[in-house]
Amino acid sequence: METERGGIAMMGLVVGTTETATIEGLSAAGADPEAMWHTPAADAELLAYGDVLEAPAVPVSPSGCPTPALITRAVRELTGFDLVAIDAGLGVETAAPTVALGSEPGRDIRKPTAVPEAASLWERGRRYGRRLPVEQLTLAESVPGGTTTALAVGDALGIDLSVSSSLPENPVDRKRRVVTAALATSGYSPGELEGRPREALAAVGDPVLAVLAGVAAGALESGTALLLAGGTQQLAVAGLLRADGIDRPISVATTPFVVDDPSADVREAAERLGVDLVVTDPGFEEASGPVFERYLAGEAKEGAGMGGALAAATRENVSMSSVRDRITTLYERLNGATTHA
Amino acid sequence: METERGGIAMMGLVVGTTETATIEGLSAAGADPEAMWHTPAADAELLAYGDVLEAPAVPVSPSGCPTPALITRAVRELTGFDLVAIDAGLGVETAAPTVALGSEPGRDIRKPTAVPEAASLWERGRRYGRRLPVEQLTLAESVPGGTTTALAVGDALGIDLSVSSSLPENPVDRKRRVVTAALATSGYSPGELEGRPREALAAVGDPVLAVLAGVAAGALESGTALLLAGGTQQLAVAGLLRADGIDRPISVATTPFVVDDPSADVREAAERLGVDLVVTDPGFEEASGPVFERYLAGEAKEGAGMGGALAAATRENVSMSSVRDRITTLYERLNGATTHA
Repeated sequence: METERGGIAMMGLVVGTTETATIEGLSAAGADPEAMWHTPAADAELLAYGDVLEAPAVPVSPSGCPTPALITRAVRELTGFDLVAIDAGLGVETAAPTVALGSEPGRDIRKPTAVPEAASLWERGRRYGRRLPVEQLTLAESVPGGTTTALAVGDALGIDLSVSSSLPENPVDRKRRVVTAALATSGYSPGELEGRPREALAAVGDPVLAVLAGVAAGALESGTALLLAGGTQQLAVAGLLRADGIDRPISVATTPFVVDDPSADVREAAERLGVDLVVTDPGFEEASGPVFERYLAGEAKEGAGMGGALAAATRENVSMSSVRDRITTLYERLNGATTHA
Repeated sequence: METERGGIAMMGLVVGTTETATIEGLSAAGADPEAMWHTPAADAELLAYGDVLEAPAVPVSPSGCPTPALITRAVRELTGFDLVAIDAGLGVETAAPTVALGSEPGRDIRKPTAVPEAASLWERGRRYGRRLPVEQLTLAESVPGGTTTALAVGDALGIDLSVSSSLPENPVDRKRRVVTAALATSGYSPGELEGRPREALAAVGDPVLAVLAGVAAGALESGTALLLAGGTQQLAVAGLLRADGIDRPISVATTPFVVDDPSADVREAAERLGVDLVVTDPGFEEASGPVFERYLAGEAKEGAGMGGALAAATRENVSMSSVRDRITTLYERLNGATTHA
């Protein structure tokens, strides 16, 4: 997709896994722990092809809410934006085309070191982001358990991220307990790693956060217009960039479902980080069907570039009504395919 | 890019290397042997991003003719077709997003076995091609030395491919000598592997041919409209499919530079294989500039999906005059970038 000035507009979807996701009750990014392990690869395939190939199924939450990658794909079908999936440590085979910047899933953050290669992932990401010859880059993520690692990284850096969740009832207390345990086994007190983003990532982060921060830093260095697409995790990325001394303006594109989450004050967290929030309302209350109902009930909320894709639709003058229609068509196509397969 | 019927139109660029390319004087796909080793990765980056990132330079022939990937990229910028690069055995790191179906470069075909894993590459390709949820698939290739391995595979199968070349003076005699030596050290006489395509690939092929044949077979199985983009190598793929007992209609999209090559009778070879040739004339004689002059002088001719991209432009009602304009713009952008880097 070309920008108005003739440059390229691209979405970079950073995918990876962390053992942190297997801690019970933290994430809804998959029907069960086994399926969750395939969620990032499935999201990447869905965005690239409009369906899964190697991945066992289109990701759904335990209650059946489909992955936000479905919404991102719907917008991609309407606007044709360029996509690149960046593998930060998938841990499974995928049929999605990927740029491999990492190879190892992150460890459970309650282990002493979660991402031993955090500094090199950041550097590889930075090199890639700096060279990427695009005018406008939207960075997205898919990593189950990612809001918990984001919260932990924020805590290590001394930044309050007021974390959101892909579950309708945000298991904040459970996340806090995991984060407290994670910092303790790594030997740090909250805020002790202020200004040391790579060490915070190594201690309690995940590989996706490390690559996101690196690519973002590189893109900003080379003057690319950057949009971080997502909720809590992208605020953590902004926190990592600030901790690295990067004071350029940072924009985060997200959904109203994240901003309106009563258990998280995302606007306040964004303000503290000097982040400009771009919130695009897809108007789901004006449509009917299982996808819209689940999202309106507070499930999934964001992820796999959903907020960034909605922002792209607005930028390209694609109406939210046609986005909703395409979501319905895609959902029916995928469910039909599942039924008849 | 959507087709008229709302399905997806995609180009699959299969990239890989073979030690056969290092035999002196066979290929023009790179300024020198070291650069040639990076040509497929560079082509994949150019198609994905409009420039190289990890690859050292935009590929040029020894005399300075730029890679046909430049023409394919120009058309992609105008039509926005979906692209996936398939790694059959690159042997170098790349910043291009790739689906990894192979990992080993092919050996010099004068060794007893050139592609030990040919049968599994074919099968992986077939599985991928069968699952690819697209309506229209254009398969392209980039593998220096590929016309020589194609000729060898044809000889092993007993099929006369009347081979073309990326050099203006086709080194046919040199290629014939390499092929004769290749079959001899593998222990086969010409035509001895008739009807045994996987064995022909293993003995004297390259990993790109194996993956191309597999993906093509899988796509045909699942009813995808298939277009093989290229010259001699795609005729070899057609020969491999015929040798495997696949009798469906096969179309090869190529350029007039291949069809008009006086040292190769491509039309006759296509007819023997029951292949429908789609030749799209980009009208280079109506433009001026170094790219057009080189191609009109018989250099490069085809590769990296050039003929398929030109066919896509026609299908999408993009005029050849705007294709030529975009080629010039892209060439100037890349040369400017090289000068100022």
